Amino acid sequence: MAGYARRLDRIQPFHVMRLLHRARELEAQGRDIIHMEVGEPDFDTPEPIVRAGVEALREGRTHYTPAVGLPRLREAIAGYYASRFGVDVSPERIVVTPGASGALQLLMALLANPGDRVLMADPGYPCNRNFAFLHDARSVAVDVSRDGFQLTPELVEQHWGDADGAMALLTTPANPTGAVIGREALAAIREVARRRGGHLLVDEIYQGLTYDGEPFTAAELGKDVFVINSFSKFFGMTGWRLGWLVAPPDAVPELDKLAQNLFLAAPTPSQYAALAAFEPETLAILENRRQRFEQRRDSLMPALENLGFRFAGQPSGAFYLYADCRGLGMDSDALSEALLEQAGVATTPGRDFSVIDPGRWLRFAFTTRRERLEEGVARITAFLAGRASSTES
Amino acid sequence: MAGYARRLDRIQPFHVMRLLHRARELEAQGRDIIHMEVGEPDFDTPEPIVRAGVEALREGRTHYTPAVGLPRLREAIAGYYASRFGVDVSPERIVVTPGASGALQLLMALLANPGDRVLMADPGYPCNRNFAFLHDARSVAVDVSRDGFQLTPELVEQHWGDADGAMALLTTPANPTGAVIGREALAAIREVARRRGGHLLVDEIYQGLTYDGEPFTAAELGKDVFVINSFSKFFGMTGWRLGWLVAPPDAVPELDKLAQNLFLAAPTPSQYAALAAFEPETLAILENRRQRFEQRRDSLMPALENLGFRFAGQPSGAFYLYADCRGLGMDSDALSEALLEQAGVATTPGRDFSVIDPGRWLRFAFTTRRERLEEGVARITAFLAGRASSTES
Repeated sequence: MAGYARRLDRIQPFHVMRLLHRARELEAQGRDIIHMEVGEPDFDTPEPIVRAGVEALREGRTHYTPAVGLPRLREAIAGYYASRFGVDVSPERIVVTPGASGALQLLMALLANPGDRVLMADPGYPCNRNFAFLHDARSVAVDVSRDGFQLTPELVEQHWGDADGAMALLTTPANPTGAVIGREALAAIREVARRRGGHLLVDEIYQGLTYDGEPFTAAELGKDVFVINSFSKFFGMTGWRLGWLVAPPDAVPELDKLAQNLFLAAPTPSQYAALAAFEPETLAILENRRQRFEQRRDSLMPALENLGFRFAGQPSGAFYLYADCRGLGMDSDALSEALLEQAGVATTPGRDFSVIDPGRWLRFAFTTRRERLEEGVARITAFLAGRASSTES
Repeated sequence: MAGYARRLDRIQPFHVMRLLHRARELEAQGRDIIHMEVGEPDFDTPEPIVRAGVEALREGRTHYTPAVGLPRLREAIAGYYASRFGVDVSPERIVVTPGASGALQLLMALLANPGDRVLMADPGYPCNRNFAFLHDARSVAVDVSRDGFQLTPELVEQHWGDADGAMALLTTPANPTGAVIGREALAAIREVARRRGGHLLVDEIYQGLTYDGEPFTAAELGKDVFVINSFSKFFGMTGWRLGWLVAPPDAVPELDKLAQNLFLAAPTPSQYAALAAFEPETLAILENRRQRFEQRRDSLMPALENLGFRFAGQPSGAFYLYADCRGLGMDSDALSEALLEQAGVATTPGRDFSVIDPGRWLRFAFTTRRERLEEGVARITAFLAGRASSTES
């Protein structure tokens, strides 16, 4: 039996998967586990979207759509940029994709030659570096732990390198930190990328889930910026596998060609269902959910701080807290495992997000209801107290 | 603005897309167009599958599934191999994917290093070579036009090359020719791949749509063969974007890792809907459709032969006729265009499937009802007669 491609060695499985597997084993044994590891909203898809999906199925909307998506959905997305952000984006620049994953795949296929440098924040979403590896490009992990957890124009300039092929990939709000990049910093990074003759990609998959400041989109910067988005997180449509790209006009025919080959088109029932995502009834449901996420953040963060976890600042978006656990005397792999086994609380160790100093960090997701989060904090409190007393004795 | 990755130059858009666009323009002008270019069954998704999809949505089955698919669906697919083909495939070897496209993507990411040789039949499905190009591997187009339109053990041996990295990718029944490979030839090709230390990939996306001989699956050959399949064609679920792989046991953890990164999971509602695909009620509907496809083939092929199109033999599967049009005095690009503009019949020129001698071939799909196919033949007859008389005059 022949071997597998060399790139496989560089692609790590998500460590949280092993943890999740163990959590399920414990649950099968009757243990109650509090899930603070899940990167998926606990809310179901809003009812108006589900209704539109059911209607689409009943009407036989199950054949292929154009590779770049249903024209009506591309128009609806363009309309959302106008109504929510006051930014004029032509529907022709919208490419509908199977999730933000599909969008990232398209962009790496479009932009990355083998050996090219893809700059990204460390910590960051682990798939991002793996998308680069899939096309044998290099991921350049830039330590942003002292810079508000986002790339800065200076860091981008400093790490750009002298080679021809380079691009910067930002995520805002970020996973695992919830950090939001400032408008001016983003504009300045775009200037660096332009000056150096490279590309700027901005992943806005957590857009809509922000808690401070006025929302904006990188699409306002200019037509040269690639913007990635998704119906998964804010719109609550994870399992439907639907996202989109805003692309420079001249990239769209190339992306169309790649989409025809890579996935033919995004799922048709999902596309019809998503037409209901921008309806006022849906947006009201989503705003209510956003407020609930904000309340969870506001109660969970101080509770974890009380226990000795440290935070660089309050996350302005997404549904994660990336906690510095150096003060607790255990590395995050050991801590995460102990919390699961002894306290029945599942978290994600930094190893999944940080190449640099992974043992220092632990991600808490607030994708479960408040009483469960409070119970989780109580269990962690008891675990740490027990540990302190056993160390003393 | 920086350029795009070099691989883009090697990836061609489907020429049929330009044609489809023109067909839509003509229809918008009020012209009636007969669609013999569409690679998608005209039948809607069978009602039991749609019902299961609606039920899944109503029950809130809209969150992520495991990356390799719903356990129940993996079991149902394994059960289908047992009941239909008498082949024992463990559910653990099934990886559910977003369409056969997702499966091909996973396999190229898993197996192809830059520069590796991927042997495939010419003519063949154009995405196959493009999946190789996406990972900067080389597609080796092997002329099978004198060998019943399928690779033979001799051809595979002859084109394997001396380099380390090589694999063979077969499609049976084939697109665009409908050719089915024989059981013995397939087994012998597997032996060549084993002896040369490479992989054999068999795409069975048109499985179930066969009209002659006893159906079988490459999965019977052994656990080392990668088998690709889909719910799109036989099961009538194109827009749902759902397919699967049968993989060697030791490849599954690697495929799981790649799937987590590439697409997270196949669409959840589609996976629940597909649970109804193997129900007796659904299979009865599908058998009826298969018979209708067979009737279309049996009437369309002789009608086209009467007009001067030539065929190497009767296709044993799929829903295509790949016609040799050399006798008609026009190359297939010109013929396809003239048929659309002057006769209102859309076909796909050989350029989309053949690197070798593309102008010789024209693909007719019988994915429209019989009366429309007959009307199409009548129009082509009139077009050719008009052309003959104008040439004579």
